[in-house]
Amino acid sequence: MRTYVLDPASSVPLYEQLYRRLKEDLLSGAIAGGEKLPSKRALAENLNVSRITVENAYQQLLTEGYLVSKPRSGYYAEHLETLPQVTAPGIRPDAAPHGAPETAVSAGQFPFSVWARLMRGVLLDGREALLQPIPSEGLPALREAIAGMLLRSRGMEVDPASIVIGAGAEYLYTLLFQLLGRENIFALENPGHRKLRQVYTANGASLMPVALDESGVTLQSLLASGANVLHISPGHQFPTGIVMPIARRRQLMAWLGSRENRYLIEDDYDSEFRFTGRVIPTMYSMDVTGRVIYLNTFSKTITPALRISYLILPPALLARYREKLGFYSCTVPSFEQLTLARFLSEGYFEKHVSRMKRRYKLLRAQFLEALAEAPFAKQVEVVGDEAGLHMILKLRTAYSDEAVAAEIQASGVPATCLSRYYFPGTGAGEGGAVVLKYAELSQADFPRVLTLLGRLTAGENLEKAAEK
Amino acid sequence: MRTYVLDPASSVPLYEQLYRRLKEDLLSGAIAGGEKLPSKRALAENLNVSRITVENAYQQLLTEGYLVSKPRSGYYAEHLETLPQVTAPGIRPDAAPHGAPETAVSAGQFPFSVWARLMRGVLLDGREALLQPIPSEGLPALREAIAGMLLRSRGMEVDPASIVIGAGAEYLYTLLFQLLGRENIFALENPGHRKLRQVYTANGASLMPVALDESGVTLQSLLASGANVLHISPGHQFPTGIVMPIARRRQLMAWLGSRENRYLIEDDYDSEFRFTGRVIPTMYSMDVTGRVIYLNTFSKTITPALRISYLILPPALLARYREKLGFYSCTVPSFEQLTLARFLSEGYFEKHVSRMKRRYKLLRAQFLEALAEAPFAKQVEVVGDEAGLHMILKLRTAYSDEAVAAEIQASGVPATCLSRYYFPGTGAGEGGAVVLKYAELSQADFPRVLTLLGRLTAGENLEKAAEK
Repeated sequence: MRTYVLDPASSVPLYEQLYRRLKEDLLSGAIAGGEKLPSKRALAENLNVSRITVENAYQQLLTEGYLVSKPRSGYYAEHLETLPQVTAPGIRPDAAPHGAPETAVSAGQFPFSVWARLMRGVLLDGREALLQPIPSEGLPALREAIAGMLLRSRGMEVDPASIVIGAGAEYLYTLLFQLLGRENIFALENPGHRKLRQVYTANGASLMPVALDESGVTLQSLLASGANVLHISPGHQFPTGIVMPIARRRQLMAWLGSRENRYLIEDDYDSEFRFTGRVIPTMYSMDVTGRVIYLNTFSKTITPALRISYLILPPALLARYREKLGFYSCTVPSFEQLTLARFLSEGYFEKHVSRMKRRYKLLRAQFLEALAEAPFAKQVEVVGDEAGLHMILKLRTAYSDEAVAAEIQASGVPATCLSRYYFPGTGAGEGGAVVLKYAELSQADFPRVLTLLGRLTAGENLEKAAEK
Repeated sequence: MRTYVLDPASSVPLYEQLYRRLKEDLLSGAIAGGEKLPSKRALAENLNVSRITVENAYQQLLTEGYLVSKPRSGYYAEHLETLPQVTAPGIRPDAAPHGAPETAVSAGQFPFSVWARLMRGVLLDGREALLQPIPSEGLPALREAIAGMLLRSRGMEVDPASIVIGAGAEYLYTLLFQLLGRENIFALENPGHRKLRQVYTANGASLMPVALDESGVTLQSLLASGANVLHISPGHQFPTGIVMPIARRRQLMAWLGSRENRYLIEDDYDSEFRFTGRVIPTMYSMDVTGRVIYLNTFSKTITPALRISYLILPPALLARYREKLGFYSCTVPSFEQLTLARFLSEGYFEKHVSRMKRRYKLLRAQFLEALAEAPFAKQVEVVGDEAGLHMILKLRTAYSDEAVAAEIQASGVPATCLSRYYFPGTGAGEGGAVVLKYAELSQADFPRVLTLLGRLTAGENLEKAAEK
């Protein structure tokens, strides 16, 4: 049995140390694809650590797709696509994530008093700071604070100079479209965010839907689309909640590396909301092609009343941005940029994210408990990873999709038919699946949601009753 | 002689009353094109008002192009194009400007203490106001405050619902481009703003330069361009400083009215900075076609650190916006929107504008005085109306345009060669003309500017000396 020397005195938790060492061996091939791993008990004894430590390390590797679990048999190494060997200048091929534990965040519970105090501080510091010229890419103070936060909470090593600040993700989509050029074909996840489709459409982009399987975007569908720009959310796909496993990520990296004009936009917009395990490493961090663009937003994690999002551009695209789009004024007021810079560098962001994650994890568990106790519980299947601010409920219902939509509308419950997230004409067969934004609920709303679900599933019962 | 009953007890100044009555008669044809107006002295005696009153009224009508002045002869009515008789629903054909005196504004002198106080007030009012959902078009409080300010200071009657707020003019250009559609051809003033050309180019728009004469964009050049969307600054053209006279405005209105697919974007972005007479009525206010879009910004008038601009959309385009682009989130944080709403509705904006206008008027006069006393004064011609934050200096110089640009660069004076504002390859013959952004100067900078001008004009002297 393989053995690892772990350091109990280190600030890095034991499970994290073990996870890293196992991942190195899985990536290097020292643990070959298909190889069976030692049982949790055996490895724990061998390393003289608790079973929980091994359990946590295996669990994270499972979530990231390095391991597969076979019932009654054990854990096996996944067969990983070999990474393309293209190395772009300025991109470290070993830019693997490391560092501190996970982050995760919220939408409704804005930390108003902290924010207001920081704003007053920015005001007191006065006019010089507030009226300084803003570079097109945003104020250096904010870009440095973002890089610091990404290193601490995500293990991402990012040059602050490669960060571009903009007034919301929608604005940045438009900017990216201008940066990459109109001659591209953009592949979008189907189902996926409607706004993304709307923004690209409003810009006159050529769009192709790409189908998902349980690992996310399929290579087959991507190749068939003829697209050369892939816009995805591998950390937590919306609305399916899929976390893209490492094997699929590597497949997509190989796709990306095999043609010079291919780009991948990693839209990481709610991946901070993971409730279990470590945060998932980004595709940006594993990029060796220099053609992965990372995008994230604070509108979602702090409050939508704040419109601040950012891009991380690889070196060649950063140069192109400066040449082609550097004339643009930054769209975010300096006041918000300076306040957010303090919010990040004084650690409030990570505290806020942790608090929100606890809140949503609890809310999710409470809702699932209430649902399990409902008389129609067996007619509702819950889909999606333990992450994000929504869940998919598959209902056994006799109602048409339109009727379900009308019932939801009438109920005031923050939910949408899953079919609405498909490209027009492609969402057939998703009738009865509903995306519930549970993060917008409180416990007081549960009866209303359960009443809605009861009504919708009763349609099936009534029909069955009528058949008899 | 025509007579008018003026009311000395009215809150409207006498010159303003006379200006309005004369304009009515000029518009209705009661004073026919080509007709000679009574002398200032004769009219003043006839109306029993001071000559200054008549002088001010005539001066404003001259600036707006209703009158022409012939030396040693007097004032004559201009021949005005008849307005097209298209009337769009929701557009009042009599939406003529009225109301209070002029506004005008600034760039550098941000009223920081007032702004900070208003921000603290917004913070004290707390989270409910700040975290309310923002409609795509912006917060109602700000849109109402803008409509109120436009009525008070510009005499514009605007439905707050027709206002769309965005993070800076550049963002709104992109939004407008998406709204009108890619199939259009856009005509831009040549010379004109470089950023405007850059934004449209980055969006992939079809662009045509349109030549100017002393009244602004010429109809001939516009027709020859084949463009159907005209983007102009009739209130104060950049960089020439031309105020478009009423006759040319009416010609362009007729052009606009004669085809259903024609649009006019009135980019009013520094027209608040008029130093003499009333503010010029907008083309939006005289629109009867329902296809004039008004655009203005507070980034210029308050501070560039604040990114807030707005569109006023006519009814048909507003409906199209809601249908096609209403999914967009507003790009301006609610905090800035609420602070600006207070700044406007509590009258600070107009006070600030007045103060800045006085400041720039004085600075401009001081600079011209210093220039007049320079030994090379006769080699420099000052071009442009008494408005705006810049002036054009035509230099008698032997230097090439490139050499002038290099000298400016080395001097650090905020100036640019006029030729740089032309579409590439069209700016020949403007060598030696320089756009000086005098509003960015203080008196302490004058010696530096004069040294630069002295060096540039000395080139000519040296050449002449060599010829002899």
